[in-house]
Amino acid sequence: MRARIGVFDSGVGGLTVLRRLLERLPNAEYHYLGDTARVPYGIRSADTIVEYSREGLSYLRGLGVDLLVVACNTSSAIAVPSLHDEFSHPLIGVVNDGVEIASDLAQRGALVLGTRATIMADIYQRQIAQRRPALPVRGLACPLFVPIVEEGWADSQVAVDVARRYLDQCSDFSFDLVLLGCTHFPIMQATLERAVGQDVRVVDPSVRVASRVAGCLPSAASGGCPEVHFHVTDSPEGFTRVARAMGMPIHNEVKHVDVAALLS
Amino acid sequence: MRARIGVFDSGVGGLTVLRRLLERLPNAEYHYLGDTARVPYGIRSADTIVEYSREGLSYLRGLGVDLLVVACNTSSAIAVPSLHDEFSHPLIGVVNDGVEIASDLAQRGALVLGTRATIMADIYQRQIAQRRPALPVRGLACPLFVPIVEEGWADSQVAVDVARRYLDQCSDFSFDLVLLGCTHFPIMQATLERAVGQDVRVVDPSVRVASRVAGCLPSAASGGCPEVHFHVTDSPEGFTRVARAMGMPIHNEVKHVDVAALLS
Repeated sequence: MRARIGVFDSGVGGLTVLRRLLERLPNAEYHYLGDTARVPYGIRSADTIVEYSREGLSYLRGLGVDLLVVACNTSSAIAVPSLHDEFSHPLIGVVNDGVEIASDLAQRGALVLGTRATIMADIYQRQIAQRRPALPVRGLACPLFVPIVEEGWADSQVAVDVARRYLDQCSDFSFDLVLLGCTHFPIMQATLERAVGQDVRVVDPSVRVASRVAGCLPSAASGGCPEVHFHVTDSPEGFTRVARAMGMPIHNEVKHVDVAALLS
Repeated sequence: MRARIGVFDSGVGGLTVLRRLLERLPNAEYHYLGDTARVPYGIRSADTIVEYSREGLSYLRGLGVDLLVVACNTSSAIAVPSLHDEFSHPLIGVVNDGVEIASDLAQRGALVLGTRATIMADIYQRQIAQRRPALPVRGLACPLFVPIVEEGWADSQVAVDVARRYLDQCSDFSFDLVLLGCTHFPIMQATLERAVGQDVRVVDPSVRVASRVAGCLPSAASGGCPEVHFHVTDSPEGFTRVARAMGMPIHNEVKHVDVAALLS
């Protein structure tokens, strides 16, 4: 019997993490839950984020998954530490891997890009500083990247101009690594690479997340063709539309799950 | 005793409506409630929108206001029709006035700009078509305008480029009036006027909302200096920061109201 992997996200952004998992671990059955009715989590209180995450992860557990990936940055940072004791399954968030990559690879300085909520919560900056105190690190909130990605404009001139405008806010900071601290941002990776120039690496934590999962479930990492099931708490049509605009069209059925069903 | 006016919005956008009210009716005491903990309303179900609006309006009623303005487009469209019977106060939404202006002033065609939720709900387009069936009308979702305004970039080249990119989607539609169907968009008015050119009028419904309120409370329309109180359900700092970025700095105290207090 093949491994079953649950991927939990507050919305559609986690599809960039799912994409890396499918590449690295094709021999598995996937269940992706996007809590699109209650997105974004970043603006909610910590208690609410933990509760919503518990509900979402419990729903995936009910589907018989063997391992849970928390793709949402907010949920990874706020909820995963509290929920480890409640789930016997491996529970893998994206933040740890982002912190590790930035700490391992940056030389002059690390610039963390995220939503305003992630950057203001100082999630990545604090953990990178703990792991590598001498490394200069700074956070930069880029809230416009999310709607740009969802409009399907990630490769447009507008996207380049917006990226440059944000990066200008850090012209006094010397960095050689940009960490994508929001699951939407990998869709902007090529644009960001153009904006920062050749001597700066732009890094997506989900590549390391997929490696970590492959370490836990080696049988899923070779051969086979993945089977993917999507579950969303808001309209399947909206989810499918945004996924297509993001360049990740969904060919499978997307099942609607009422939020009330998560509570039971 | 001066009139007390309650202004209800799901967030910070209603400040553009408040601004017009303060200009037109300076002789009044204002209470502005922004339900910033539960914004945006547009993505919620109709039942939830009605319930949140009922809670917010009841809170304002408890402050002794004489008239209620619903600045939020979603709440105006979805909740106001259901709530008229529950509130003995005049209850004035922004949608009616937007529909009236567009129907009265447009000649060739009316283009309604709004968030994706407002445009997909077909709120303005349907009501304009009912009022003036022969007028061509089209909706255009411009979700990027909200974060552009909240970043304080409304007058930037990026804003002009984004506006042009959206308007290009309607190059096959002939219109001489653009209706701003989202309370954030008046901050972009000058930029939009540049983008559409001289022969197209860009209209903000809140000017007519203020006239309607002045019709109800004539004593508030002359003399005096307004007194304004702000109430928000999320952090006052976030509200104040975004208001400043939008070019509407707040010099008064902003009071935090817990969502639980709205429910009681």
